[in-house]
Amino acid sequence: MTSITNPSLSIAQYRQKFPALANKRYFNFGGQGPLPQESITAIQKAYHYIQEAGPFSGKVNDWVIAEANLTRGAIASEIGVSKETIALTEDVTVGCNIALWGINWQKGDRILLTDCEHPGIIATVQEIAQRFEVEFSFCPIMATLNEGNPTEVILQHLQPSTKLVVLSHVLWNTGQVLPLAEIVKACRDYSPHSQPVKILVDAAQSVGLLPLNLTELEVDFYAFTCHKWWCGPGGIGGLYIKPEVLEELNPTFIGWRGIIVDKVGQPIGWQPDARRFEVATSAYPLYKGVQAAIALHQSWGTGEARYQQICQLSKYLWQRLSEVKSVRCLLTSPPQSGLVSFVLTNGKSSHQLVKSLEEQGFLLRTLRDPDCIRACLHYFSNFEDIDKLVEVLMAND
Amino acid sequence: MTSITNPSLSIAQYRQKFPALANKRYFNFGGQGPLPQESITAIQKAYHYIQEAGPFSGKVNDWVIAEANLTRGAIASEIGVSKETIALTEDVTVGCNIALWGINWQKGDRILLTDCEHPGIIATVQEIAQRFEVEFSFCPIMATLNEGNPTEVILQHLQPSTKLVVLSHVLWNTGQVLPLAEIVKACRDYSPHSQPVKILVDAAQSVGLLPLNLTELEVDFYAFTCHKWWCGPGGIGGLYIKPEVLEELNPTFIGWRGIIVDKVGQPIGWQPDARRFEVATSAYPLYKGVQAAIALHQSWGTGEARYQQICQLSKYLWQRLSEVKSVRCLLTSPPQSGLVSFVLTNGKSSHQLVKSLEEQGFLLRTLRDPDCIRACLHYFSNFEDIDKLVEVLMAND
Repeated sequence: MTSITNPSLSIAQYRQKFPALANKRYFNFGGQGPLPQESITAIQKAYHYIQEAGPFSGKVNDWVIAEANLTRGAIASEIGVSKETIALTEDVTVGCNIALWGINWQKGDRILLTDCEHPGIIATVQEIAQRFEVEFSFCPIMATLNEGNPTEVILQHLQPSTKLVVLSHVLWNTGQVLPLAEIVKACRDYSPHSQPVKILVDAAQSVGLLPLNLTELEVDFYAFTCHKWWCGPGGIGGLYIKPEVLEELNPTFIGWRGIIVDKVGQPIGWQPDARRFEVATSAYPLYKGVQAAIALHQSWGTGEARYQQICQLSKYLWQRLSEVKSVRCLLTSPPQSGLVSFVLTNGKSSHQLVKSLEEQGFLLRTLRDPDCIRACLHYFSNFEDIDKLVEVLMAND
Repeated sequence: MTSITNPSLSIAQYRQKFPALANKRYFNFGGQGPLPQESITAIQKAYHYIQEAGPFSGKVNDWVIAEANLTRGAIASEIGVSKETIALTEDVTVGCNIALWGINWQKGDRILLTDCEHPGIIATVQEIAQRFEVEFSFCPIMATLNEGNPTEVILQHLQPSTKLVVLSHVLWNTGQVLPLAEIVKACRDYSPHSQPVKILVDAAQSVGLLPLNLTELEVDFYAFTCHKWWCGPGGIGGLYIKPEVLEELNPTFIGWRGIIVDKVGQPIGWQPDARRFEVATSAYPLYKGVQAAIALHQSWGTGEARYQQICQLSKYLWQRLSEVKSVRCLLTSPPQSGLVSFVLTNGKSSHQLVKSLEEQGFLLRTLRDPDCIRACLHYFSNFEDIDKLVEVLMAND
């Protein structure tokens, strides 16, 4: 058993903070992160507090407002923005939908997606295209994983009528990190010839994985979830909206959280910030779980430090997979993210293998396009799990 | 201290199942129901199970599908429909938004709302009106609380271009129960003269309060939440869609839960039933909490038995409030729901009184239109709490 870096004792201790890691070898951080015990406890305490002080009381209602603010603040501190730019949502997909439906679509407008977007987002774009007579097309990004320039591919597919580009910061299938700053600049430089091109990022795989400063990135919309790389509870996500485009984006699904009412309760306007896109009652105790998860990560290290650790572990897995005869990694160079995808070259079924791995306590997943298996590594993954995974994969040769 | 019915010991024991009731006198069921201990425990167990078996694994993914189905089934068993007609949502407002945005609006279509709808719903209708050049207006239902016929008022305001009527089954401000079956029939009878009028019901205050058979009611869309009269956790609601109108209603916010994909993951259609309106990752452990809450109510009695008990308690509060000099009930006859609203006649501030009551352990709320105080009674409320409330209100005379 070789390892590039010896796992420190502190990582072993740190991993004990995640109950899910106790009885398995976990490689599905891109599906859902393990919930820290501190989050579980915080959620339970919140449920008890709400019953003790409410559930519906002035005291609890004030608490909900305060906790929502603290949650937006915790999120904002991780992605380099002010909390006023964050709308809390149920999940990343709702965040994407808020941006997609909020644009003032005109007949003939175009949407450009990469060919690596999530089916739920594609289906939303299809529906918008049908309702508003908007056109959409896909650009071939998947093929740039090992060679080629994704920015150029996107640029080649822009048209004067392109109003929105939809892309993922980290591709959920191949793990490729798109050069977002470069893409944003290219779209801005293109825009003088036409209407400004807005950029919506599906950040399902980038938030909690990459060190981020969205203010510097100048992206328009960045939709994320708290339950994957941030290891928060499922059911809380959000959308960052660049302050300059807030007033252009219309709220679609609307409720009491997003509006301002007059003395007799009639709606007379929107909340002054991104809260205007929030709807109504949510599972508020989960806010405590998100805050605890983010605080835990920040106690371990900066976003940059966590990312470097992820890359080190990914590189190690990628290298070791090259020793497995029946496996070929999609990447021909070390990964830039925590997602490491590979195909089976022995003709066996990926689906069957993943099922069998789960029975042996290794949690991975398959993807449909490309047909592959995905192993994810977080900063608190360990070399032992990687070595053990390689061992069982070799047994499958 | 008088009481019409002596509280049985069993009610006292039963109330111990709700931790929130232990330290206060609770009258805010229409804001949020107290969560039963069985729901709290079920939620906690689900969090542990997901970490033990996942969080992202084939086993947990199967569990999520099964629990969503069980939740739709539990809901369906309470409202007289099949589970395939239920889409799970985050809250009642999202359910209303799904129906409102899913209609194929044409310029000049009209929406008729009552003057007692929730501001979030009004704001949604305002936005739809602006985007699709749809007209909307309000009909004066509030004034029919004690005399007049709400069905006639609605009928008088229908126009050939009216495509949708939006109303609440139980009005959240005055507690009036609208004669929904009669209203649906009146709209159907009117429709031959024009396009069919669809009916969207905001059921925030009726689900869990009224005995319901939506199949018989023939309503088109019925949006509800699980966290008020059903006493489930906040963050789970739903929308009933009448099977005959399923195909007419377009999904708006869209995600992987609502679509069907082909072998390479491309969306090729909708789920065959109401699941097509569900979006993406939710707080799945809460499904267990909803199931436990509904099971508890059903163990106590039928929907009809619970409703009769609510009416008996409401009548008692309404009668006793007539003894308080500084209070006037909005209703001139006994309530038909668990919502009992009253105004102060001594010139004092409702807001200040409710705040002071909360400090004394009585949880009520104010409303803006009409400017009043609302006390809610559930089937497990008790006469003692009512008597004590009347006592402190008398002290305010």
